Amino acid sequence: MNHKIYFTPGPSQIYYTVSDHLKSAVKEDVMCISHRSAAFQKIFESTRLSLRELLEIPDGYEIYFTSSANEVWERIIQNLVIDSSHHFTNGSFAKKFHQFALSYQKNSTSTLVDDGQDFTDLSVPEKAELISVTLNETSIGFGFDMEKLKELRASYPDKLIALDGVSAFPAVKVDWQLVDTAYFSVQKCFGLPAGLGVWIVNQRCMEKYDQVKKAGIVTGSYHDLTDLKSNGDKNQTPETPNILGIYLLGKVCQDMLFRGAKMIQNDTIYKSTILYQALEQNPKFNPFIANKKIRSKTVIVSECEGGNAGIVKLLGDKGFVIGKGYGSFKDSHIRIANFPVHSKEQIEMICDLIAAY
Amino acid sequence: MNHKIYFTPGPSQIYYTVSDHLKSAVKEDVMCISHRSAAFQKIFESTRLSLRELLEIPDGYEIYFTSSANEVWERIIQNLVIDSSHHFTNGSFAKKFHQFALSYQKNSTSTLVDDGQDFTDLSVPEKAELISVTLNETSIGFGFDMEKLKELRASYPDKLIALDGVSAFPAVKVDWQLVDTAYFSVQKCFGLPAGLGVWIVNQRCMEKYDQVKKAGIVTGSYHDLTDLKSNGDKNQTPETPNILGIYLLGKVCQDMLFRGAKMIQNDTIYKSTILYQALEQNPKFNPFIANKKIRSKTVIVSECEGGNAGIVKLLGDKGFVIGKGYGSFKDSHIRIANFPVHSKEQIEMICDLIAAY
Repeated sequence: MNHKIYFTPGPSQIYYTVSDHLKSAVKEDVMCISHRSAAFQKIFESTRLSLRELLEIPDGYEIYFTSSANEVWERIIQNLVIDSSHHFTNGSFAKKFHQFALSYQKNSTSTLVDDGQDFTDLSVPEKAELISVTLNETSIGFGFDMEKLKELRASYPDKLIALDGVSAFPAVKVDWQLVDTAYFSVQKCFGLPAGLGVWIVNQRCMEKYDQVKKAGIVTGSYHDLTDLKSNGDKNQTPETPNILGIYLLGKVCQDMLFRGAKMIQNDTIYKSTILYQALEQNPKFNPFIANKKIRSKTVIVSECEGGNAGIVKLLGDKGFVIGKGYGSFKDSHIRIANFPVHSKEQIEMICDLIAAY
Repeated sequence: MNHKIYFTPGPSQIYYTVSDHLKSAVKEDVMCISHRSAAFQKIFESTRLSLRELLEIPDGYEIYFTSSANEVWERIIQNLVIDSSHHFTNGSFAKKFHQFALSYQKNSTSTLVDDGQDFTDLSVPEKAELISVTLNETSIGFGFDMEKLKELRASYPDKLIALDGVSAFPAVKVDWQLVDTAYFSVQKCFGLPAGLGVWIVNQRCMEKYDQVKKAGIVTGSYHDLTDLKSNGDKNQTPETPNILGIYLLGKVCQDMLFRGAKMIQNDTIYKSTILYQALEQNPKFNPFIANKKIRSKTVIVSECEGGNAGIVKLLGDKGFVIGKGYGSFKDSHIRIANFPVHSKEQIEMICDLIAAY
């Protein structure tokens, strides 16, 4: 194999149409146009529409662009929390969001589970104004159980629910009725160059924002929700944004719509199923999440007997670049991304190599 | 002319090597690699080194990446100001930075001048911890007088000086002895796609940051100065950054180094001189800034008799896309960018068209 294919959990392999879209971007002067021009407004509007269709985002939810999911964490804390948020912490990224809240001197709390274990206690402190749930914890391959999200919504109808959709959207379907705000970055399932975050908020968030503002709390500056909204209503952004990123996102959404969200989601399930099977059938591997209900469908994580060096090298020699473990699991885990760009044929080849290892 | 050339004040024409660098980025998997990989660290280090050489940034100053200059405004206020900053406000962008400080509930002040007039009063309130100066006010083409920056440094040696280098660096030379922190976005003189800001800070800023931290003030989260530094020291970033943007910036810096910063700066002076001459010699135009000492060399702004529609169309028909006025000057001003990508030949053609108008 001459060229590498990235199965790293993000940044990952770019979607196969991206290089063509880059050529079009050059031809269409996408990198030259003003962010106050009609040409930009058209791009902004088109990307929003395609994204709304692909993710089936209902009316009443607005879409805004940030520079990363990290930035969205910060903006959620600044704009939607007066005193406290509660974080269901199933891995390093969920934990990081909680730490962001503490950095902003909020009295935020978290429910921690041992690595790879499911949440049994779904209680949330009364003081928490917002509940944070990480749909797909990229660090250990933990997929939050949608039934539990339903329970949370039913138990705490007055609290906002924030869903981290990083490395899940659009490969995992979401019930928007359970969510007030959600966000993701584009270098995961969308197969796009990093540097763009997407933040989705509903009307309840806007009302909560008004309360935060009334409480005299600093809500930020250019990416404060009113600035995002007043500009967004004109198909613009407060600052000069990553125009190329917004353009590419719109184009890839259109490509994915052509394939169909349902098809992408079904393929994701099929590919994850055969990957977990291959890992389970070889005694040298052990999927890190034992409970199948909470296994991620997009980031497959496994323990490796004697460390990951051997399998990383074997796959690497064939051109398949997979991820090592996160943090303390660096040398003991492998993480294999199963994103829309990754074809069934490629995943089947990886399964064969795992079986023969 | 088949194709447009953008003389808008940013985003503007992309540097002529950018499309080739984009092809290399695809070939080299720049959009696929992990931001924690050695490959990314190499890109990060190389871009920093090239930028340091091009801008002649001395030791003791660190370079960090943000998503925009707007973000740097916010980070400066969060990280370097306890109670008050003072803003020399020579146009809309300088004013916006002051507003950011007010959004963060600082007791910040500003010295306002009438549009196009120079500052005569250089006094700064005692309480101000940081002085903000906009080197090139993109809205009206105001170039801050470097002699005045010297005076400010001499009068207030204990205050930090923040220099807005947007649409100036690297076409305008800077004396780093006069500056503690500086910043710019890449879609102006660097001719790059928007979505990347560069923040330069010296050791005095790090000391000030420690004081802000000690005062119990929220300094942000992932783009807090300690996070930027601890990651930067490893040639990394706290979040998954705009990797493609950092790569392209490094490549274009190298291209500009090949041409030479001195040559770029001299060409900028020559091109701005002939542009102002052409405008002065045609009675239908009147450079907005009368005082030659404070005329921007990179964004040439002129009033137009009877409005800008005629000249915008004439130049547009020839393929030269120029900027309209900013804000209330939308229909009465033209703004012509004079960035490193804009050749002497192109500027001479624009001068001829202005002369014949």
